[in-house]
Amino acid sequence: MAYGYNGKILRVDLSSGKISVDEPDEVFYRRYIGGRGLALYYLLKELEPDVDSLGPDNMLIFAPGVITGALLPGAARFTVAAKSPLTGTFIGSEAGGFFGPELKFTGYDAVIIKGKANKPVYLWIHDGEVEIRDAGKLWGKTGKETQEGIREELGDNKIRVALIGPAGEKLVRYACIANELKHMNGRGGMGAVMGSKNLKAVAVRGTKKVEVKDSDTVKALARWFAENFKKKGDTSGLHELGTPILILVHQKLGALPTRNFHEGAFEGAEKISGEKLKETLDAGQEACFACPVGCKRKVKVDEPYKVDPAYGGPEYETLAAFGSNCGVDDLKAVVKAAEICNAYTMDTISTGMSVAFAIECFENGILTKDDTGGLELKFGNAEAVVKMAEMIAKREGLGDILAEGVKRAAEKIGKGAEKFALHTKGKELPMHEVRLKAGVGLGYAVSPIGADHTQIEHDPCFETKNPFLDELSPLGIQEPVKSTDIGPRKVRLFTYLQHWWSVGDCIELCLFSTAPARVWTIPQAAQMVNAVTGWDTTTWELMKVGERCTTMARAFNVREGFTKDDDWIPERFFEPLEGGPLKGKKLSKDEFKQAIAAYYQMMGWDETGVPTKAKLEELDVGWVADRLRK
Amino acid sequence: MAYGYNGKILRVDLSSGKISVDEPDEVFYRRYIGGRGLALYYLLKELEPDVDSLGPDNMLIFAPGVITGALLPGAARFTVAAKSPLTGTFIGSEAGGFFGPELKFTGYDAVIIKGKANKPVYLWIHDGEVEIRDAGKLWGKTGKETQEGIREELGDNKIRVALIGPAGEKLVRYACIANELKHMNGRGGMGAVMGSKNLKAVAVRGTKKVEVKDSDTVKALARWFAENFKKKGDTSGLHELGTPILILVHQKLGALPTRNFHEGAFEGAEKISGEKLKETLDAGQEACFACPVGCKRKVKVDEPYKVDPAYGGPEYETLAAFGSNCGVDDLKAVVKAAEICNAYTMDTISTGMSVAFAIECFENGILTKDDTGGLELKFGNAEAVVKMAEMIAKREGLGDILAEGVKRAAEKIGKGAEKFALHTKGKELPMHEVRLKAGVGLGYAVSPIGADHTQIEHDPCFETKNPFLDELSPLGIQEPVKSTDIGPRKVRLFTYLQHWWSVGDCIELCLFSTAPARVWTIPQAAQMVNAVTGWDTTTWELMKVGERCTTMARAFNVREGFTKDDDWIPERFFEPLEGGPLKGKKLSKDEFKQAIAAYYQMMGWDETGVPTKAKLEELDVGWVADRLRK
Repeated sequence: MAYGYNGKILRVDLSSGKISVDEPDEVFYRRYIGGRGLALYYLLKELEPDVDSLGPDNMLIFAPGVITGALLPGAARFTVAAKSPLTGTFIGSEAGGFFGPELKFTGYDAVIIKGKANKPVYLWIHDGEVEIRDAGKLWGKTGKETQEGIREELGDNKIRVALIGPAGEKLVRYACIANELKHMNGRGGMGAVMGSKNLKAVAVRGTKKVEVKDSDTVKALARWFAENFKKKGDTSGLHELGTPILILVHQKLGALPTRNFHEGAFEGAEKISGEKLKETLDAGQEACFACPVGCKRKVKVDEPYKVDPAYGGPEYETLAAFGSNCGVDDLKAVVKAAEICNAYTMDTISTGMSVAFAIECFENGILTKDDTGGLELKFGNAEAVVKMAEMIAKREGLGDILAEGVKRAAEKIGKGAEKFALHTKGKELPMHEVRLKAGVGLGYAVSPIGADHTQIEHDPCFETKNPFLDELSPLGIQEPVKSTDIGPRKVRLFTYLQHWWSVGDCIELCLFSTAPARVWTIPQAAQMVNAVTGWDTTTWELMKVGERCTTMARAFNVREGFTKDDDWIPERFFEPLEGGPLKGKKLSKDEFKQAIAAYYQMMGWDETGVPTKAKLEELDVGWVADRLRK
Repeated sequence: MAYGYNGKILRVDLSSGKISVDEPDEVFYRRYIGGRGLALYYLLKELEPDVDSLGPDNMLIFAPGVITGALLPGAARFTVAAKSPLTGTFIGSEAGGFFGPELKFTGYDAVIIKGKANKPVYLWIHDGEVEIRDAGKLWGKTGKETQEGIREELGDNKIRVALIGPAGEKLVRYACIANELKHMNGRGGMGAVMGSKNLKAVAVRGTKKVEVKDSDTVKALARWFAENFKKKGDTSGLHELGTPILILVHQKLGALPTRNFHEGAFEGAEKISGEKLKETLDAGQEACFACPVGCKRKVKVDEPYKVDPAYGGPEYETLAAFGSNCGVDDLKAVVKAAEICNAYTMDTISTGMSVAFAIECFENGILTKDDTGGLELKFGNAEAVVKMAEMIAKREGLGDILAEGVKRAAEKIGKGAEKFALHTKGKELPMHEVRLKAGVGLGYAVSPIGADHTQIEHDPCFETKNPFLDELSPLGIQEPVKSTDIGPRKVRLFTYLQHWWSVGDCIELCLFSTAPARVWTIPQAAQMVNAVTGWDTTTWELMKVGERCTTMARAFNVREGFTKDDDWIPERFFEPLEGGPLKGKKLSKDEFKQAIAAYYQMMGWDETGVPTKAKLEELDVGWVADRLRK
C-alpha cells in the first residue's frame, strides 16, 4: 500500500450492527484517490437508484483524502457524501477542522455507513476499534452539549466529533454536520441523512500518524507555505479578516447579493462587513489542522443576543445570506442567526436564502402574518430573521415548511411563490451574483450538486487586470477572460477549473490554500501527493481525477433521472439587476444555452448531457456506463 | 520573449525572392510550442485547401522545438511539415542530427517557405542573414556531393545542410530530406515538396546559443541522463546496437514483417539482425547533438557492393523493409539499398514496401519481366531488390511507377494489384505487425499522417509482464493492457500515448530518449521545458499541446476531404498470419470499427471523425473551426 493511506475502509451497517473492513489495492486508491472520488465509487457501485434519501437505504460516507492528516497547510479536509435529501442528486460536502486528520489517525481511510439504527446512537472509532454506542441522552441536544457529552462519557477531551444538532434530527433538508462545533460539511443536507439514520455523531481518536514517503519534501513544502502565505494572492486578507473580507469586495463590484438577489449593492454593507466584525465583535482567530492561515473567526456577543464563541464566527456566505440578502444591517442579529445555525447544525446559506424567500413571499402578499406567526417578515427586520432561523431549526410553524428548502416550500405555498425561490436542482444559491460572474452562473447550472460556490469562485479575477492569470498558466490558460463573458473561452476556463476544484475535493486540499488566488501553486498539488505517497503523479493525472469525479457525479444524477432541463438558473438572472453599480445588467438566455451545450461537448457528454461510454472508458471507469441505467 | 526561443520566424517566398520575419508573442509560442504545433498553425492559417502538393502553393516549414538546441539529450530534433504529396494529408516529419539545433543558433525559431524558385537554388541562413543562392551546379547531385559542394562554396566545413538528392528533384513521392547525409525527415515526401520548389538545400550556421532560463537544472538533467541511460529501459540496447536490435526481438515475438506482411517470422532473420550487422559491417557509432546514447551506426561494405560509410547504417525499419519484408537475407544487399535511398534521399520504408508490393505483383503474374526490365522480381532476390531501389530513385522503367507510392502504382497497374498495396491514406506501412500490436493497427488507421510508427511503438510492453507500465503511471495508466487487446482500455492507452508522442513532435523530444521504454520520465519533459523557458508548464499543459496538435492535423485533413472511410488498415490484417509463432492470428473487423468509434469519442470528435467546435475551443484553437470548411 502507498504511503499516505491506511489501506483500510471501515464499513458500518447501523441496521444490523455489522462492522467490516475493505482493503482495496493501490490501483483503486490511485484511481479514486479519496474524498469525493472514493465516495462516488461506492455510491455508484452500491447505492440502488431511486432510494429514499432519508431512508435506511441511503449511504453516508465520511472520506478524507490522500493528503488529509499530513503536516501540510490545506490538508485538513474531508468529504461527507450521500444522495442529497435537498436535491436528490449526488452530494459531496467538504469541511476542514480536525476531524478528517483524526479519522485518518484511527487507521481508516474512510467510513461507509448504511442502514438505520433502531435508536439514537453514535459511532466511536479509536485506533482501529469501532463501537456503536447509545446516544439516547444526547438526542435533542445542541452541538456543544453533544460534543461535551461524548468527550465526558469517553473521558478524553481530545476526541474529535462530527455531529448533528436538533436540525439534523428533525431532518431539516439542509441540516449540516459540524466538527469542533464550527467546521461544517455544510451543504446539501448531510446532517439530515445522519439524522435519518439515528446517528447523532461520529467520534474519532487515533494515534497512528499519516506515514509519508518523503517527509523532507513535506516539511519543505510546509515551510515554503508558512513563509509565503502572507504575501501571496488574497490569502493575506483571509489571514486578517477571513472570508468576511468579501462583503466590501463584492459591494464595490456591485455584486453583493441584496434582498434576494434583486440588487447588487447594499446600503448597510459597511455595517455587516468583515472589517466591522473585527472592529466590534472579534474574539480571536482560529485555524484548521496544520494551517497557519487561520481564516476562522471567533465572535462574542452578549446583548441583545447571547452568542457563544464556541460556535465560531460567520463566514462571508453567512454574513451576506442573513445580512444583505435579507436586507439586514444589524451585525449582531446576523451573528446570532449564524450561531443558531451552527448550534442546531443547519447550512447558513440555505437557511438565509429560505428566510429571504419567505420575506419576498411576505412582501408580495403570498405569505401573511397568519403564516408567520405574527412576524412582520420584511427585508431589514433583523429580529424576524433571527426568529425565522430558530423556527426552521425547530421546524415550528412556517419554519417547518422552510425546512424543506425553497423549492419544496414554494411548491407547498403555491400562488406563484416559485419565482422567489432561487435555487438550482433544489439547492439554494450561494452569495455570488451571476450577472457579474457569468462563469458562476454556468457553475450553478451544471454543478452535479446543485448551486455551489466552491467550484466557481474567482471569476472577477479574470478581468483584464487579472492578478491571478499567471497562476493558471500551468493549466494552459494564458489569456484573461472577462468576468461577464459567457462565450467559449469562459466555458473552457470554467471546465478546466472545475476539474481542478474537483481535484481538491478528492485529494482534499482546501480551496482557500491554493491557486487560483491563494498560496499553493497548481503544480504543488502533485508534489504534495507524491511526497505523501511516493507516487509519480502529475497535474495531468490529477486533472483527470477531477474530471472523473465530476463525470461520475453526473452519471449518478443521470441515473436518478436528472436531465439537461435541470441544468439551469433562476429567471431572476435573465432580468436586470435593480440596484448597485451594475444596475440593468442581465444574462442572455441564448448565450447561456450555448455555453451549456459547449460545456457538454468539452466534457465529452452527448447533447443531452449524458457522459458517453467512451468518455467513461477514457476516464478509466467504463463500468459506470452500466450504472447509468436504472 | 521566453528563454529558449529567438522570437523570430523566418519567411521566404521563393517565387518573389521576398524574405520577411514574423515576431509572435509569448502566448503564441506557449500555445503552439514549436515543431508540428507551430507548423500546423501556419498551414491551417495560410495554406488554401486543395492546393497541388507539388505546386508552388504548397508550403514547406522547417520547425525546431522549444528545447531544440538546449544541451539536453534528445533535444536535437526538428520537424519538416507541408501538405504531403504522398497522402494529401498534413505531414510532419522529424529528424535528429545537428541541423535543428544549428537552425536555432541562426536566430530563427522556424523557416516557412512558399512559392517556387525559377531555377535550382539553395537557402543560406547564417546568424540572422538569409540568402537565396544559385544551386545550378548542385542539381542532379547526390547527398554527399551536395553537402560537400555547399560547404566548399561557402568555405565553412561546419555548415549544417538539409538537402535533397536526385529522388527529391525527380519528385519521388516519398523522397525525404537528409541532414548530415543520414538523419532523415523520412516519411511523407518532404523531399519531393522541396524538389518541387527547386530548392536543393537549406544550409545553416549560427553562433547564437539557445539561452536557457535555468542552466543549472538543464545541466543537472543532462547529467542525470548521462548517468542513467545505460541502465534504463531498452536504451542499453539502442546504445549497443541501435534500432536494428528489433529484428530479433520481433522475430522472437512472431511479429517481424516478412514477404509483404504475409508472415511474422523470417528464416533469414539472424542474417539481417542488428547483432550480425555489428559483427560484420560495423564502422563505428554516431550520435545526435548533445546525446550520449549514440543509437546511429556507420557501416562499411566494399564488395560485392560499394557502400559509403558517410550515409550511415540502416535502422530497424530499413533492415526489415528491404530484408525480411522482401524475403532478402543478404545483409550487404540490404545495406546497399539503404545507401541508395540515403544518397538519393528516399524514405527506406516506402521504398522497401514499394519493392515488396512489386514483388508480390510479379509473383502473382500481374507484373512480368516485360515490366521489370528483365528482372526476376521475386521474394529473396537480393540483387533485384537493390536494382529496383535504384530504378525508383532514378524513376527508370517500373521504378517510375513505384516512385508514386504503392497506392498510385496499384491504380496504374490495375489487375487487382491494390490488394498487395499495404498503406493507409497512401502511406506505406512501417515494419510493425498489427496482428500482434493491435494498438499499432489503430494508430495506422487514425494517424493524421497515414501509417506511421512513431506514434505506436511500444504495444508489446503492455503484456502482463510489462516492464514499462510504471513509466506510464504519471499519465494515470496503472494497469497492463494486452498487446492484442483492441478494446476500450487499449483505445484509452493509445489516445493518451498519442497525445504524449505528439508532445515530442512539438517540443521536439526524441522518441528514443523518453518514456515509455526509454530514459527520460514523462514528468521530466515539463521540467525540461520549464528549465529552458522559465515557464511553469505541467504534464497537463503539454498533453493538451499534444492533443491540440493531433486535432489540428485532423482538421487539416478534414478540410482536404478526408473522411472516416480513410481511417482503415489493409485487408491483410483481417486475414490470418501465414507463418511464424503467431500463425493464424488476425484482427476482428467489428472490434476494429468499435475501437475507431471509441477513439473519435475520446478525442471529442463527432461520429464522422470531425473535431467538434467545442473541442477546438477547449483546445484554445476555436479559430480552426472556421478552417474546417473549404
